[in-house]
Amino acid sequence: MATATKQDTEVEELRSKIAALEASLHEKEARQDLVHPYSRSYGRAMIASILDAPDGGKSLAGTTLRVGGWVKTGREAGAGAFAFLEVNDGSCFESLQVMVDKAVAEPVGGLKRLTPTGSAVLVEGVLKETPEGTKQAVELKATKVLHVGACDAATYPMAKKKQTLEFLREKAHLRPRTNTIGAVARIRNGLAFATHTFFQSRGFYYVHTPIITASDCEGAGEMFAVTTLFGREKELRGLPPPASPAELAKLREKVAEQAEAVKTAKAAAAADKGDASLAAASKAEVAALLALKKELDTAEAGALYQAGFKRTPEGELDFRDDFFGRGAFLTVSGQLQGEYYASALSNIYTFGPTFRAENSNTTRHLAEFWMIEPEIAFCDLEDDMQCAEDYVRFCCRWLLDHCASDLAFITKMYDAGAVARLEQVAASPFHRCSYTDAIKKLEAAVKGGRKFDNAVEWGIDLATEHERYLAEELFKGPVIVHDYPKDIKAFYMKLNEDGRTVAAMDVLVPKVGELVGGSQREDRYDVLVERIKASGMPLEGYEGYLDLRRYGSVPHSGFGLGFERLVLFATGLDNIRDVIPFPRVPGSAAF
Amino acid sequence: MATATKQDTEVEELRSKIAALEASLHEKEARQDLVHPYSRSYGRAMIASILDAPDGGKSLAGTTLRVGGWVKTGREAGAGAFAFLEVNDGSCFESLQVMVDKAVAEPVGGLKRLTPTGSAVLVEGVLKETPEGTKQAVELKATKVLHVGACDAATYPMAKKKQTLEFLREKAHLRPRTNTIGAVARIRNGLAFATHTFFQSRGFYYVHTPIITASDCEGAGEMFAVTTLFGREKELRGLPPPASPAELAKLREKVAEQAEAVKTAKAAAAADKGDASLAAASKAEVAALLALKKELDTAEAGALYQAGFKRTPEGELDFRDDFFGRGAFLTVSGQLQGEYYASALSNIYTFGPTFRAENSNTTRHLAEFWMIEPEIAFCDLEDDMQCAEDYVRFCCRWLLDHCASDLAFITKMYDAGAVARLEQVAASPFHRCSYTDAIKKLEAAVKGGRKFDNAVEWGIDLATEHERYLAEELFKGPVIVHDYPKDIKAFYMKLNEDGRTVAAMDVLVPKVGELVGGSQREDRYDVLVERIKASGMPLEGYEGYLDLRRYGSVPHSGFGLGFERLVLFATGLDNIRDVIPFPRVPGSAAF
Repeated sequence: MATATKQDTEVEELRSKIAALEASLHEKEARQDLVHPYSRSYGRAMIASILDAPDGGKSLAGTTLRVGGWVKTGREAGAGAFAFLEVNDGSCFESLQVMVDKAVAEPVGGLKRLTPTGSAVLVEGVLKETPEGTKQAVELKATKVLHVGACDAATYPMAKKKQTLEFLREKAHLRPRTNTIGAVARIRNGLAFATHTFFQSRGFYYVHTPIITASDCEGAGEMFAVTTLFGREKELRGLPPPASPAELAKLREKVAEQAEAVKTAKAAAAADKGDASLAAASKAEVAALLALKKELDTAEAGALYQAGFKRTPEGELDFRDDFFGRGAFLTVSGQLQGEYYASALSNIYTFGPTFRAENSNTTRHLAEFWMIEPEIAFCDLEDDMQCAEDYVRFCCRWLLDHCASDLAFITKMYDAGAVARLEQVAASPFHRCSYTDAIKKLEAAVKGGRKFDNAVEWGIDLATEHERYLAEELFKGPVIVHDYPKDIKAFYMKLNEDGRTVAAMDVLVPKVGELVGGSQREDRYDVLVERIKASGMPLEGYEGYLDLRRYGSVPHSGFGLGFERLVLFATGLDNIRDVIPFPRVPGSAAF
Repeated sequence: MATATKQDTEVEELRSKIAALEASLHEKEARQDLVHPYSRSYGRAMIASILDAPDGGKSLAGTTLRVGGWVKTGREAGAGAFAFLEVNDGSCFESLQVMVDKAVAEPVGGLKRLTPTGSAVLVEGVLKETPEGTKQAVELKATKVLHVGACDAATYPMAKKKQTLEFLREKAHLRPRTNTIGAVARIRNGLAFATHTFFQSRGFYYVHTPIITASDCEGAGEMFAVTTLFGREKELRGLPPPASPAELAKLREKVAEQAEAVKTAKAAAAADKGDASLAAASKAEVAALLALKKELDTAEAGALYQAGFKRTPEGELDFRDDFFGRGAFLTVSGQLQGEYYASALSNIYTFGPTFRAENSNTTRHLAEFWMIEPEIAFCDLEDDMQCAEDYVRFCCRWLLDHCASDLAFITKMYDAGAVARLEQVAASPFHRCSYTDAIKKLEAAVKGGRKFDNAVEWGIDLATEHERYLAEELFKGPVIVHDYPKDIKAFYMKLNEDGRTVAAMDVLVPKVGELVGGSQREDRYDVLVERIKASGMPLEGYEGYLDLRRYGSVPHSGFGLGFERLVLFATGLDNIRDVIPFPRVPGSAAF
């Protein structure tokens, strides 16, 4: 549908005027804000605000300023007359060279305290232009050393110039100081802010879906339980071993008999109030009854608890004493709750942690990872695919614009194709291909002699080898495969008119394979009920979800993107444990 | 320290030029982007892009467009000749009035299908100016109804015009369709994006600190355990009851005796190879040995497991079989890991979920909430306070600029002072007051006849009544209290030179009390070790944390802000369960 007056040219002109003004402002601000607003007490300038200026900081030459950071490498020169320190503060990939004379270092213990890799320094000095051909346009000539955080090279685990990524994983608290993990952290930050910027600027609201969920029927994978039962286990363990039903019955009988004895004794005492021995006998019977009752109480409690945990009569763990009054789990997806909010706010996205308790010790799996899940009302599969494509391409463009030096380093060290891949993806539309056509293409490849480990036929779930063949060899770029067989996809995906496929789509990219998975959701109440039943799941677990189809149902779609997969795709690194600050995997939740 | 050339005036001028150009661009874009980019198949315009235009959409009059959303109220008029629908799509607070003629509604089942509250509609029509004095500047005259998602008013839980917030909590999946929760969702989104914008524009990197942690010694509150042990409990429950050490010893003895018997029988069989009965006897002894060994294995396993859980010899739960090979918990703070990254990237912030397993059924506590934790290198308490103040004021300004109608509604319905409070906070610097002075002021108030439930003397932890007195009555605005007694604050806060206070600060605000808690961190290795020991905690749990002070230690500071507290402060709502989409509290993890 064509709408409204188009004023494309005018908008374009305004945009470039703004861009020019902003560039000019940015340059002036870089001068103005040379002291970080929250480091004024120390007067620290961010190294990025010097080296990231368009002229590499040249116009700042002659300025007195302070930089603080960690020494990447330090070496004495001039027979100990001065030292060069490469100081990095993590604000950008580049380090600033600082030249310190012996005399300047004297008050803080001499040059030898400054040069070890890992030492922290805060230095005041004058910025100087470097000779032509030097890596950086400027260096700092120190006039004062204001802080030294010493670092013993003999024990510092990061002292060596190059460590393996495996080794660095064991030092997750220090590894962000390395070139690689520092670059990954900045790229990850870039992708996160690009994500928020993309969705916010397109009218999506950010929704925090819950991490703890009592719904164990999402069926998207094995779940972690969340509990406070272990906290009381020790105390409850002290209860007696469970009494059998027969023992309990016997005790209850004894209590009843004793209650009769109390009655009789009380009656006797009441009949002859003068007889003190009758009163005493009555008291003794009451005491015996109380003791028996206490014994029964303890036995009954013991029958409920076994070895520290409450049990149902069937012997199952009983979660009614647990924090949430029932079993609770860590979320595997915020989609259901995202749909609730999209059915009110129209366009929403989530960006939060997600969990899988699968015992997968691979380079592609984490027990804890971050996921982005947009959900859109009045949106069909076509719109959904467009959104996923625009989002991924926006992220690639953002990185090229904001993380150039980090990407250059990664490209040099790990994946020569990383920058080219980002540029290609940012620049060209994604291919689209129905699942049925994809299978035909794979079958043709097999006929042509291409070997796959997994057989190809209509109905299979595409394996990573198939996905990468499509993205890397056949389409040579991202491809969106859509309309999958219903039997290999989730129940909530909208059934197509052919009755055998659903309106699902996966974005496949080179290097990673599946990056995005999404679908139009089944918005017809009756069809959804049938699909839930056919999946063998209980309808009761989906009452809220069904309400959306009962009360003002709208066509809607969404997708999920594993954030670490996006970082892997952007950096070309091989192991997912290197692109999240603190990886959680089977057997390890260190740091 | 004074730095660099200041070009304040020029920067200011450039900024206002840009602002003017951006406003002009925004206006033109609103016309251009009238169809939401991911609703093109349905041609849906966001209602915000019509009503949020500076002229309220007047210049769009005469345009044909489509809107989709949910009917807030619908009523037939003109004796059933037409109906007015108030349609809301959640993109903004306001609803758009849609006028539908009987004939237009005929193909979709008549006007009665459209008017019930909660019905979903997608309507095409022509935008018309409304008469002067009407609430909105425009309304839509429908020419076609493209979608109806019916809603049965008899059963729809949100059909009534006004429901209590308590009732809405029971319908967390539908409550974002209400005015209040819709406004809260947009305000919450505004504060979240303001948070990212504030930190990103000041050179902070966003770091995802882990949710699952194996560290149980953070001491910040009770923790939830994360486990996969319940998954195997049923299977392991089938093991025999634990054998006693004596029984196990006896079995082991039997196995040894039988091994001897096997040896003897084998020797006999070997000595006389012709004797088949000897060979058979040897075989029988071997079989008996194998049976005994199996019995021992089962008994040993049974001794390890009890009622489905592995036990140590001391009877404690043994987590070596658990997913992470040890006990694991949900994080109570990302501060430690934030410090790791700040000691490499200089300025970082976290924004993620945080957990407390405290059994607090109050209006101010959640078991799952979101927290923002910046951490800054070369930053002292003064800088830290400035950062917290700038951040909170930035958020208030952002809301006033971006969520005006939502705030207006909240102010009208819940807290007449909400907007004024935001304006005051955005406009004026925060007061500062040392803890010692705060106590003096409280003591003076007590002398003057002010009553508090909690006694006032140097050394107490300020109660909420004290905090609110300071912020609401004494300073009449936000106040930062700093330099608290060391005994009421955490071990990692930097010890001041007086030896009895630490460099801690709390931001106290009207309505909420404590909004932010922060400190300069102890960066001296020896002092930190002493402080950990004095807290009675094991040093081993802090090896990584101590490494930061061993290798290139820098002065650094940070703070934590509970995001839901900020939303409470901004909206003036009373119950924290109403400002998070899906509240998790003792006894409930619904939806």
